[in-house]
Amino acid sequence: MNSKPSYSIIDIPEWKKLKKHAGIINRRENHLKYLVSEKGRMENFSLKGAGIFYDYSRQRVNAGTMKLLFELAEKRWIKKQFKSMTCGETVNNTENRAALHTASRSFSTDPVFVNGKDIMPEMFSVRKKIKEFTSKIHSGEIRGSTGKAFEHMVVIGIGGSYLGPEFAAAALKHLAIRKMQIHFLSNVDIHNFGEIAASIDPESTIWIVISKSYTTSETTANTNQAYEFMRQKGLDPAKHFATVTSKGSPGDDPSNPVVASFHMFDFIGGRYSVTSAVGGVPLALYLGYDVFERFLKGAEEMDIHAKEAPPGENLPLVASLISVWNNNFLHYPAQAIIPYASPLSRLAPHIQQLNMESNGKSVTNDGEALGVPAGTIIFGEPGANAQHSFFQLAHQGRPFPIDFIGVLNPCYGQYKSISKGVTNHQELWANLIAQPAALASGKDDTDGAKHFPGNRPSSTILLDDLSPENIGRLLSFYEAKTVYEAFIWGINPFDQFGVELGKKLASGIRSKMADKNKNPEYSFEDADPITGFYLETLYSGSKNL
Amino acid sequence: MNSKPSYSIIDIPEWKKLKKHAGIINRRENHLKYLVSEKGRMENFSLKGAGIFYDYSRQRVNAGTMKLLFELAEKRWIKKQFKSMTCGETVNNTENRAALHTASRSFSTDPVFVNGKDIMPEMFSVRKKIKEFTSKIHSGEIRGSTGKAFEHMVVIGIGGSYLGPEFAAAALKHLAIRKMQIHFLSNVDIHNFGEIAASIDPESTIWIVISKSYTTSETTANTNQAYEFMRQKGLDPAKHFATVTSKGSPGDDPSNPVVASFHMFDFIGGRYSVTSAVGGVPLALYLGYDVFERFLKGAEEMDIHAKEAPPGENLPLVASLISVWNNNFLHYPAQAIIPYASPLSRLAPHIQQLNMESNGKSVTNDGEALGVPAGTIIFGEPGANAQHSFFQLAHQGRPFPIDFIGVLNPCYGQYKSISKGVTNHQELWANLIAQPAALASGKDDTDGAKHFPGNRPSSTILLDDLSPENIGRLLSFYEAKTVYEAFIWGINPFDQFGVELGKKLASGIRSKMADKNKNPEYSFEDADPITGFYLETLYSGSKNL
Repeated sequence: MNSKPSYSIIDIPEWKKLKKHAGIINRRENHLKYLVSEKGRMENFSLKGAGIFYDYSRQRVNAGTMKLLFELAEKRWIKKQFKSMTCGETVNNTENRAALHTASRSFSTDPVFVNGKDIMPEMFSVRKKIKEFTSKIHSGEIRGSTGKAFEHMVVIGIGGSYLGPEFAAAALKHLAIRKMQIHFLSNVDIHNFGEIAASIDPESTIWIVISKSYTTSETTANTNQAYEFMRQKGLDPAKHFATVTSKGSPGDDPSNPVVASFHMFDFIGGRYSVTSAVGGVPLALYLGYDVFERFLKGAEEMDIHAKEAPPGENLPLVASLISVWNNNFLHYPAQAIIPYASPLSRLAPHIQQLNMESNGKSVTNDGEALGVPAGTIIFGEPGANAQHSFFQLAHQGRPFPIDFIGVLNPCYGQYKSISKGVTNHQELWANLIAQPAALASGKDDTDGAKHFPGNRPSSTILLDDLSPENIGRLLSFYEAKTVYEAFIWGINPFDQFGVELGKKLASGIRSKMADKNKNPEYSFEDADPITGFYLETLYSGSKNL
Repeated sequence: MNSKPSYSIIDIPEWKKLKKHAGIINRRENHLKYLVSEKGRMENFSLKGAGIFYDYSRQRVNAGTMKLLFELAEKRWIKKQFKSMTCGETVNNTENRAALHTASRSFSTDPVFVNGKDIMPEMFSVRKKIKEFTSKIHSGEIRGSTGKAFEHMVVIGIGGSYLGPEFAAAALKHLAIRKMQIHFLSNVDIHNFGEIAASIDPESTIWIVISKSYTTSETTANTNQAYEFMRQKGLDPAKHFATVTSKGSPGDDPSNPVVASFHMFDFIGGRYSVTSAVGGVPLALYLGYDVFERFLKGAEEMDIHAKEAPPGENLPLVASLISVWNNNFLHYPAQAIIPYASPLSRLAPHIQQLNMESNGKSVTNDGEALGVPAGTIIFGEPGANAQHSFFQLAHQGRPFPIDFIGVLNPCYGQYKSISKGVTNHQELWANLIAQPAALASGKDDTDGAKHFPGNRPSSTILLDDLSPENIGRLLSFYEAKTVYEAFIWGINPFDQFGVELGKKLASGIRSKMADKNKNPEYSFEDADPITGFYLETLYSGSKNL
């Protein structure tokens, strides 16, 4: 990989300059209450691009900070790395793979080569297949084994095969095709299965199994549970299951027939796969293929912006610099995402996965210790709800940066009741406008309990409305911000070796359980005492409690 | 308040000893992989009480740590403070109020005096009223204005009037009375209202408005929206609304008739109010009064344990010490709550509010600077889902302590399909057992990307099942843990002045909007430029984007 810098980030002069500069920003005269009142603050510290407005005027930066951050970005070749990614280079070096989520929503006829082969024809053919399949399901040409049209879809998948599609489905629920209900069966917890089983009509249910390897334990367990459930209802699973999986996986095996099978590729990681067939099959069935395509076009627009726009005008690039600044120089360990729009309630859990799994790393691309923390704890609930929940801590306790997200034109314009002189939407916006201001400026009070220290940073992101294009743009914005952060640190945002140890230990424990299930005399005495205690407790009913 | 220590915590010898001791625990030889393999670790670092099992063997503590922490607890008179709280003393000193959530689930005939008056008769009478009301709704004696029995309930409330009831309703959904659906209208966002309006049958809908003051802007706006909606459907609001509010509030005004009105009291704060009428009315309607009463009895049992059990055997007290240890001595800024049970999916958002709003403070009871951070960032999603989302960062990035929660006996025993030799529930437990072990012990690897540093602390909490008693116990455990933390720090966990500044600014902005709504010529030019920009943008449609 010649497009990545090979020296440690903490040794470069740009990093050292930023460290020194943080000392200046931490001075009392650079409290946010002074920064925000500078002339032209809003104009100088906000951006518009690809249909999204990004205001970082309430971040703890000044012109000098941004200059140094842009120098860092240049030194780390981050735009070059982004281009390498979109061109199909092997940016996922530890797994020797490309990272081409951008191709999954590209409508360009330019080829993208992976190992010498243009992958775009395959991208288009998957989309075409989704379109045709959706049309046949919606028209009733494809039906269940008793002839009923499908009205329930259960999406079986976990992690990257769940959180992204769930976020997009919730955000675009206002466009859902009325006769199709969507359910997500992610957790192996039997309560998840039980609740869904109780709320569907099996005859009109199609199960979409999403798993790249088709060997993920949780997904396999749920798929088996669902097969058994359908068989017990006298229904033919071959007519009720579709799969999204790698070519040639056990889920793409003609000896195990399904309604349809759609391909995923090793160059699109789970948490980046919403715009591939992973999101495509459930979203097109739930919303219609045209809505899914509009969602892709929005994401593509932001991809092009992220790749082409100069650093100073580039929304996700600037957002990534702010993120690294807050993380490594101002030392905030966490960041909240607070959308002032209930349909975006699953944005924070999705970005939590996207960002924390991508950048929760301690080593560089070369396997060397990074030396500073990468990644941050991401959490969030919708505003104004969050104000009545954890904002006490935000205002007067441990500070953390916040992304506020506003939607200019909501759905449900028919509800016009006025309270205290304003509509519900205006009330919501009064709060969206007030919170960043209160956090930034604070308010002195001689009574300690009523003193607001302020100097709490935030950004505000605006969308025009909850159109599919805007949801695609927002998704792509956070994806590009995440990879730009990684490119600054010089880490690989596409692997996730950190999840392997737990899987391995779980596999050993599962084996012991399987032995015990076969032979009730099997003893757990070779397990370590703590593991042994929990295994005994599980098998003994409640007598250990 | 003579039951509170009056000196700053950082100056006392017990605090200084703990600081010194943290240096020892941070040594390599006290890595968790060594601590967990000590003989008798599990027996010595776990507790059973009030039906809950609490294992802190994977916390970064040894016998010396616990000894010092118990000395701190004693020095801070925390059990005495807890007793003062349950006895009705004015523990909420900044607001000059008692804090008596424990009374709301007490079945004892002992009096509890507030300002010389025994409040228990009022507690019992509210419960009796809930029981009778529930019975009449369920029997169809109380019906909507067109004579239809109620089958939908919309709970209007935000913050403490929402998150607790939502958590308990989700956890106990398996016991729901089939014909009653519950909806939560919390956010003032019109999408929240619009989605609910589209999914109810107005004629069979009862709206429960929960607001102590009955003046909360979001709740008022939603209530007005709902009144208007019902009137437009030709339905009489007086037959479709019930209120839970303070005596004499605008929601308890005979000139504004409602189906029923239930009282809340100033000595029970919103985030502690699940077991009062705030949770009582919706939960009894959704689950039946008997289930609600069992929920109260579980909470009461844990209250008694929290009050009576000696420090070394006291689950919430020990948990609070661990929490302060992790926060102030090991310097973890965040904590995750990961329930391995889908029905507990709303536990983390509730505890996020409970803990962050209670303890996100920087000043002591005396209004002095505390000097160390109180409160912590709480977040979480159910396991095993979280493993496939943000656990990469937990294992290899920025560490944070975790509460793992397991349920021994799940519902839905009828689904018995076996995968890889185990049931779904066993698969879930294999993960529940594996994760704390992997986080604690880690695994060395010469490949930096595959190296697991370990030494990541966690606790494991087990419930026998999802009975109402156990959900009550779990709720009370976290409430008691939260107030015990505050009692150690010497802060007031019952006020929330930190939310006031944002409300005040929002009110000013709302006024400007109201003026603009009345007079389209009204100009926002007297607002600060950033506020002005957002106001202009809201009124200009999308031309600013």
